[in-house]
Amino acid sequence: MLLAADNLTGAHPVMAQALRDLDPRPLQDLARRCAAAGARMLDLNPGYLSPRFEDRMAFLVDAVQEVTDLPLILDSPNPRVLARGLAACRENPLLNALTLEEAKLQEILPLAVEHQTRIVLLLLDEKSRPPPSLEGKVAVALELRERALDAGLTDRQLIFDPVLPNLRWPEVWPQTGAVLRMVRYLASGALFGAPARTMVGLSNLRSGLRKIYPVQMEITVMALLAGAGLSLALIDVLDPDLVEQAQLMTQVVESS
Amino acid sequence: MLLAADNLTGAHPVMAQALRDLDPRPLQDLARRCAAAGARMLDLNPGYLSPRFEDRMAFLVDAVQEVTDLPLILDSPNPRVLARGLAACRENPLLNALTLEEAKLQEILPLAVEHQTRIVLLLLDEKSRPPPSLEGKVAVALELRERALDAGLTDRQLIFDPVLPNLRWPEVWPQTGAVLRMVRYLASGALFGAPARTMVGLSNLRSGLRKIYPVQMEITVMALLAGAGLSLALIDVLDPDLVEQAQLMTQVVESS
Repeated sequence: MLLAADNLTGAHPVMAQALRDLDPRPLQDLARRCAAAGARMLDLNPGYLSPRFEDRMAFLVDAVQEVTDLPLILDSPNPRVLARGLAACRENPLLNALTLEEAKLQEILPLAVEHQTRIVLLLLDEKSRPPPSLEGKVAVALELRERALDAGLTDRQLIFDPVLPNLRWPEVWPQTGAVLRMVRYLASGALFGAPARTMVGLSNLRSGLRKIYPVQMEITVMALLAGAGLSLALIDVLDPDLVEQAQLMTQVVESS
Repeated sequence: MLLAADNLTGAHPVMAQALRDLDPRPLQDLARRCAAAGARMLDLNPGYLSPRFEDRMAFLVDAVQEVTDLPLILDSPNPRVLARGLAACRENPLLNALTLEEAKLQEILPLAVEHQTRIVLLLLDEKSRPPPSLEGKVAVALELRERALDAGLTDRQLIFDPVLPNLRWPEVWPQTGAVLRMVRYLASGALFGAPARTMVGLSNLRSGLRKIYPVQMEITVMALLAGAGLSLALIDVLDPDLVEQAQLMTQVVESS
């Protein structure tokens, strides 16, 4: 299980300010701290960018590449923002993410094909909703994979994200259970005949609720997913308790 | 995932004293507290009993049955102690455990067959050693299952325990990784063509080292195993942090 940092996000006021000011230093400082904390990939999420600021993803990529060689994840629902980021990347990034929304299939999938990148298939339906059941997630995964393969990608380029619920959502534990089973199903090879790679954004769980719920909940859910065979955990790598346990999980699941 | 209490053990001074004095009250108090804390089964482990004290297992069973209807696990390497306990049980217990040691195959297996109980197959070889690799564990599991089925048990009666290492053992994390993979292999149904039940004694990890290592380590390892499909977790149910997280795990893995 690889750890990816979700810390470089426009939701963070320091980062939002740095993007507005075109000041690379706070971004570079954050990237260095994530690398030192044990991140093996960096997710770059500039947040919503109005059309005249779509170049901010390229600025973010440039800034981060000056201080680290860690592989990058370009995280945006906006194909133009992803395209700007892609053009600035020295190494092929991971694109995050495709869903069954038709506009994304039309505009994001061709980017992945053109640049032959890896891409995250977020298990959301054509209206960007997470199917609550395992069966619903399987149906979306099958269709997304078919669209990706038809477009010219290979299974090795695909990473499936079954979308962890937020604690505010109704039925959060049954939904987390469906995510767990989906990771297990994909990782075991039972769905596609060979193990598929999976990613989960752990911070989704307590997003907006960090002061109410302890990080322990995130540690336990991450370990459940790691035990099920998760490939890539997108986490707050600057939380030392979370990272300490994530590294223990990594030692256990990667050893043989 | 069911939680079983490992608290009723002769290694605990209060329990050892109660067994010596034939005083049921401390045992009953402990059994009640375990039930209240969320245990769904009680493991009864009187520790080593010299021949003239082998009836202490029956005393323990009698004492506990007076205060709880929870299913019991009779935990002893001594077939005569297990037989004494079995004779006292109102409901069929789970026998813990068979290994590939010839004496146990000759004396414990017939008890399970005679009483048609469920039985734990501890993945230890003929010299009571845990095979370090997944392949070694698979070989022992195949042979133990074959012996059990030949003797007249069915797959539904078998629970496999791949033996969690202690933190003092060399290569503890790779060994824990092999245990994790074995649980996943058994639970997925890939080994026997149908999912097999699994049990792990979580307290093994920090046994004798509880003052040095935090319970967090046990929580993380339990969640890894739960994510892999563990059926039965044998734990210290009187540790509130451990139980709180175990119940969260149960909510996630048992929901659909």
